[in-house]
Amino acid sequence: MTTNTIDRKNVFGEAFLLQNKTAENLYFGFAQNMPIIDYHNHLEPDVMSINNHFRSPTAIWLDGDHYKWRAMRNFGVEEHFISGTASDKEKFQKWASVVPYTLRNALFHWTHLELKNPFGIKEYLNENSASSIYNQMQEALQTDAYRPQSIIKNFNVTTLCTTDDPAYDLGYHKALKSSAFETEVLPAFRPDVYINIINPQAYLTSIKKLEQVCGMTIESASDLLNALQNRINYFDEVGAKVSDHGFEYFPDTTLWNSTLEEEYSEFLKGNKAIFSNPDALCGYVLKELCKMYAAKGWVQQFHVGATRNNNTAMLTKIGINSGYDAIGEQYFAQRLSVMLDQLNTNDQLAKTIIYNLNPAYNEVLASLAGNFNEGGIKSKVQFGAAWWFLDQLDGMEKQMNTISNIGLLSTFVGMLTDSRSLLSFSRHELFRRLLCNMFGSEMERGLLPNDEQWVGKIIQDICYNNTKNYFGF
Amino acid sequence: MTTNTIDRKNVFGEAFLLQNKTAENLYFGFAQNMPIIDYHNHLEPDVMSINNHFRSPTAIWLDGDHYKWRAMRNFGVEEHFISGTASDKEKFQKWASVVPYTLRNALFHWTHLELKNPFGIKEYLNENSASSIYNQMQEALQTDAYRPQSIIKNFNVTTLCTTDDPAYDLGYHKALKSSAFETEVLPAFRPDVYINIINPQAYLTSIKKLEQVCGMTIESASDLLNALQNRINYFDEVGAKVSDHGFEYFPDTTLWNSTLEEEYSEFLKGNKAIFSNPDALCGYVLKELCKMYAAKGWVQQFHVGATRNNNTAMLTKIGINSGYDAIGEQYFAQRLSVMLDQLNTNDQLAKTIIYNLNPAYNEVLASLAGNFNEGGIKSKVQFGAAWWFLDQLDGMEKQMNTISNIGLLSTFVGMLTDSRSLLSFSRHELFRRLLCNMFGSEMERGLLPNDEQWVGKIIQDICYNNTKNYFGF
Amino acid sequence: MTTNTIDRKNVFGEAFLLQNKTAENLYFGFAQNMPIIDYHNHLEPDVMSINNHFRSPTAIWLDGDHYKWRAMRNFGVEEHFISGTASDKEKFQKWASVVPYTLRNALFHWTHLELKNPFGIKEYLNENSASSIYNQMQEALQTDAYRPQSIIKNFNVTTLCTTDDPAYDLGYHKALKSSAFETEVLPAFRPDVYINIINPQAYLTSIKKLEQVCGMTIESASDLLNALQNRINYFDEVGAKVSDHGFEYFPDTTLWNSTLEEEYSEFLKGNKAIFSNPDALCGYVLKELCKMYAAKGWVQQFHVGATRNNNTAMLTKIGINSGYDAIGEQYFAQRLSVMLDQLNTNDQLAKTIIYNLNPAYNEVLASLAGNFNEGGIKSKVQFGAAWWFLDQLDGMEKQMNTISNIGLLSTFVGMLTDSRSLLSFSRHELFRRLLCNMFGSEMERGLLPNDEQWVGKIIQDICYNNTKNYFGF
Repeated sequence: MTTNTIDRKNVFGEAFLLQNKTAENLYFGFAQNMPIIDYHNHLEPDVMSINNHFRSPTAIWLDGDHYKWRAMRNFGVEEHFISGTASDKEKFQKWASVVPYTLRNALFHWTHLELKNPFGIKEYLNENSASSIYNQMQEALQTDAYRPQSIIKNFNVTTLCTTDDPAYDLGYHKALKSSAFETEVLPAFRPDVYINIINPQAYLTSIKKLEQVCGMTIESASDLLNALQNRINYFDEVGAKVSDHGFEYFPDTTLWNSTLEEEYSEFLKGNKAIFSNPDALCGYVLKELCKMYAAKGWVQQFHVGATRNNNTAMLTKIGINSGYDAIGEQYFAQRLSVMLDQLNTNDQLAKTIIYNLNPAYNEVLASLAGNFNEGGIKSKVQFGAAWWFLDQLDGMEKQMNTISNIGLLSTFVGMLTDSRSLLSFSRHELFRRLLCNMFGSEMERGLLPNDEQWVGKIIQDICYNNTKNYFGF
Repeated sequence: MTTNTIDRKNVFGEAFLLQNKTAENLYFGFAQNMPIIDYHNHLEPDVMSINNHFRSPTAIWLDGDHYKWRAMRNFGVEEHFISGTASDKEKFQKWASVVPYTLRNALFHWTHLELKNPFGIKEYLNENSASSIYNQMQEALQTDAYRPQSIIKNFNVTTLCTTDDPAYDLGYHKALKSSAFETEVLPAFRPDVYINIINPQAYLTSIKKLEQVCGMTIESASDLLNALQNRINYFDEVGAKVSDHGFEYFPDTTLWNSTLEEEYSEFLKGNKAIFSNPDALCGYVLKELCKMYAAKGWVQQFHVGATRNNNTAMLTKIGINSGYDAIGEQYFAQRLSVMLDQLNTNDQLAKTIIYNLNPAYNEVLASLAGNFNEGGIKSKVQFGAAWWFLDQLDGMEKQMNTISNIGLLSTFVGMLTDSRSLLSFSRHELFRRLLCNMFGSEMERGLLPNDEQWVGKIIQDICYNNTKNYFGF
Repeated sequence: MTTNTIDRKNVFGEAFLLQNKTAENLYFGFAQNMPIIDYHNHLEPDVMSINNHFRSPTAIWLDGDHYKWRAMRNFGVEEHFISGTASDKEKFQKWASVVPYTLRNALFHWTHLELKNPFGIKEYLNENSASSIYNQMQEALQTDAYRPQSIIKNFNVTTLCTTDDPAYDLGYHKALKSSAFETEVLPAFRPDVYINIINPQAYLTSIKKLEQVCGMTIESASDLLNALQNRINYFDEVGAKVSDHGFEYFPDTTLWNSTLEEEYSEFLKGNKAIFSNPDALCGYVLKELCKMYAAKGWVQQFHVGATRNNNTAMLTKIGINSGYDAIGEQYFAQRLSVMLDQLNTNDQLAKTIIYNLNPAYNEVLASLAGNFNEGGIKSKVQFGAAWWFLDQLDGMEKQMNTISNIGLLSTFVGMLTDSRSLLSFSRHELFRRLLCNMFGSEMERGLLPNDEQWVGKIIQDICYNNTKNYFGF
């Protein structure tokens, strides 16, 4: 093997992840140039709309990136350089010192793919290269080509869906729509704080916010449903086609009754300090919301099984979403199946994507999804793309193998970033290279037909067409 | 890589799945010509005995095939063309239109292996080829070479075990035995409907049927056990060597007591509308049956963990076994281990095969199985072959890797079809090719000794000899 | 592929497991010559200290080896030749007859690696070679080069940790320390019998032993904690840096209260026949012990999830640890996470290694571990090496892939034998070859940088440096 061969194949090379000629033909001939629809992420509409230059490489790359934070802590870096008050340069330098030790973690590929695109840097990041790379990035970020909208455009993103609080007025989405920015930026409806009572006081504060935006009082479950319907209508008008839910434990949708209904009213009115059965409330409201989504023709997404904030000391110090979450161990297929079945029986089942954090449940969920298909829609209930801790080559391959074995990979709606960072769109490149390599390898081994047109069409469907058709973008 | 190489390796080629020379030597030198013992399937004895021509390709290939049905629904095909009233040709055409999109699912290989053998068709099925392939199949099916017995003979099947209701009179098994048909067709005892009370009325109807065939009234648990012992004796006389059980949840075998015994009698006599603890009954009767199997020297099989009929709307429309089942999430190793231990303590443990639908439990079950071996029998308790949703290349490889790592693959009783279709015997070919490729690849990598006689002997044991010895055929 | 190539790659060859040139360079250039730190095993200090010749190959190789025993039973060997009264030669001959059928099980590689090193035998063991190989081993064992200390020295072991009862006086550890033997042999504190009440009488007998060695009466939980603190102090003085716990089910550390405290005292005083809540006691004492370990700067190890003694008949006949254990199915991440969090909140969390027997929980545990890192320590909470049933190529690869994907493989403390046998140190060779092959393969595929110095440094860290730094040897 010549050095030249290896260079084409490393993370900066054109043949990265493409282990044979067929894989290259599929990628370059079919996948690479398909536009991107990023149907679920956590990008901030204000950042995209205001479109300011980023302060520094640290601002666009490290701030709030709990993946990198966890790796730094794993390596024994002091918190001062992670979420603390160290300077942008110091934090970048520390991250750079960890990168050489991230081999075999997705961060190693992500980091260098993001240096390559959009920054054009093809050099490994480490303690020695840190300063020069920081300066190159800093310089680039001061040009217009690296403002948010340009970055998105550079990645060929035609549509993206953010994740929004139902009480949000969607002002920046509207501004983006009426601006010259060509990428469609759509809101998505994520009502977690209105249906999960974790802390009663925090919950009531959220309800207060919802009352204000809806101009109504919420003193019962039916008031809550009215308010949420009101916001679904509004989101729909502004272009939303997607809702999203996150659950540590999937709720029981069969428990609600009039006693709980009364107790919940008393709780809302401030006559009771706590509500005794948050699971029942969550299950009840969820199921009613699902009916509303079905009526709108939306796609509903369920992210199930993250156990959050497991380090109390750090929660107290730096708050949520800072890298102290884990994969949960609780089953949920039966509860989910019962809810989908009841909705389906009454013709109120929306298109549904189930995301799972525990890979031991992949096969259970993929088989469950296959029970609720119907004529005219390809894979109405989808077993969703590899999520969070599983968003790496192994995790993506396992998720796609599971769909392949238990359903039809050809109907999969494909990749999303689920990211807070504008640089994460290169994960679509990673996904597409992996996808082409999986098919290409099996074609050369005879497991699949040696027909690039046939397979290339399926590749394009998974990269773009399925998503477009399924969501109706 | 020349086209010629690739053609030898595709699904129609002689080297399909055999990735290197050693794998080919193992397959052609040791595996290919071994006869088939299909020790568990759902073939219909009447179809084999009456031996009529099939009406059409749809009749032999699509009718009742819930694997294909699920794939069609996944692709958005309307139910009319699946289980509905569309014509044979229309259904075949629809299935053909889905086949190109089944890449990476076992159906793609199964479909084309079945076209190749027995039909001799080596052409990919799709919308364009559908009509011509339909006609070729139709023509073949009108000849004697494609009547049921000829198909079985063509696959070199020496013994097969069906799956039968204890109340069945085994008339067709007897007819087959006294006919000129050379393949041994043995009944297997599957008493699910007499031990699982899902619907009380349906259960009592089943009991009524058993009363009639046994010429006795069943008004207590001991009556039930007598009736089942009666039928076990009868099945044994007609040649049965195998029983089979299917459980959504494995029952608790430790709960039975005299109060339940009395209640169950009242229920049987019609004095109580329901029986309060079906799990306890199931566990009790199961354990007593296991003792009867041990006394006969039978092999007992447990299929555990399918959750069935998850789509109520479709259950109402088209009934059970129509493609709305899934992989269950409930654990069962502890209950199973306790039962096996109690039977073993009293020297009443029959040879046992455990089939599992949730691959996350593979290692648990393989390790459990290894606790109940005894001198003179190779792997008395077997971790069974990959079942249903897992019956694909990945699933088979995982199951065999688990046995290899945690037990001895060399003592595995190997493949079975578990199928309702006469064409499924080609899955033995798929299994054997995979098996030879696994060993051949590891021989060439040095992980296994480079000795084809040594390994070839083990291959033949797994393909045929182990099965013959274990079951005593 | 020439025969010569294959010979270099088989289990006796220098390139065994090293599938390409880069893997060879990593192994020979970086891994092979690193010393071994075996930080957890079950070697007997008396055997090492007394340093007698072994009676026979059977004595050093088969006696008490429940891995081999299970395989023999799996193959149908009579118990007489396993744990029974057959002669050493007969037992060896029977084992030899099974070895050819262990292909794809770790025993096949272990067996031949152990023949190669230290015995210098490069011949497959089977019925025919058995007698000659027995004689070669027997002859070697009579020489000084095959006495315990020489065997350990031959494997280049610099430090090893045994597993010891807190009541043990550590006499042989002291003797070894003051002897000329260069390998550091350290005790490890394993207090299982004092915190798990499985059988009340056996528990009280253990307590009696602890009372004697501590010269105090134990009549309350706080007495017990004082006694254990006393022994921790003593172990620490003799050089211990590690504790170890085995749990079938991880205990609940939140249940203890004054009522239980009183009941436990009555139980200790003999006023109550049983203690009603062993789980609560275990959880309480465990958490207090963890605080003591943290104060000493020790590493605490948790082995969770083996279900033991599943075959009652054989337990009665030949006792515990004889090959009738299995992988458990019970979850435990939440309980473990809660305990680690509480300890961490109070700055009392010691360095921790979590070993898991059910591979379906790998990702859950690796993600949990990542929540408790802190500045200055690399991977303070480690997801431990593949254990017992999982200690084979697949299991090790899965464990390392999990760490890679969810944490940082570069900070992993690497391999240990967990073995009762002096010959098991060759498992470090197996681990290192696998490790180099994993990295080497991915370097040649372009997934990792093609830089042997960079990767070689990480290899050396995983083989030795991380362990040395983490434990502070």
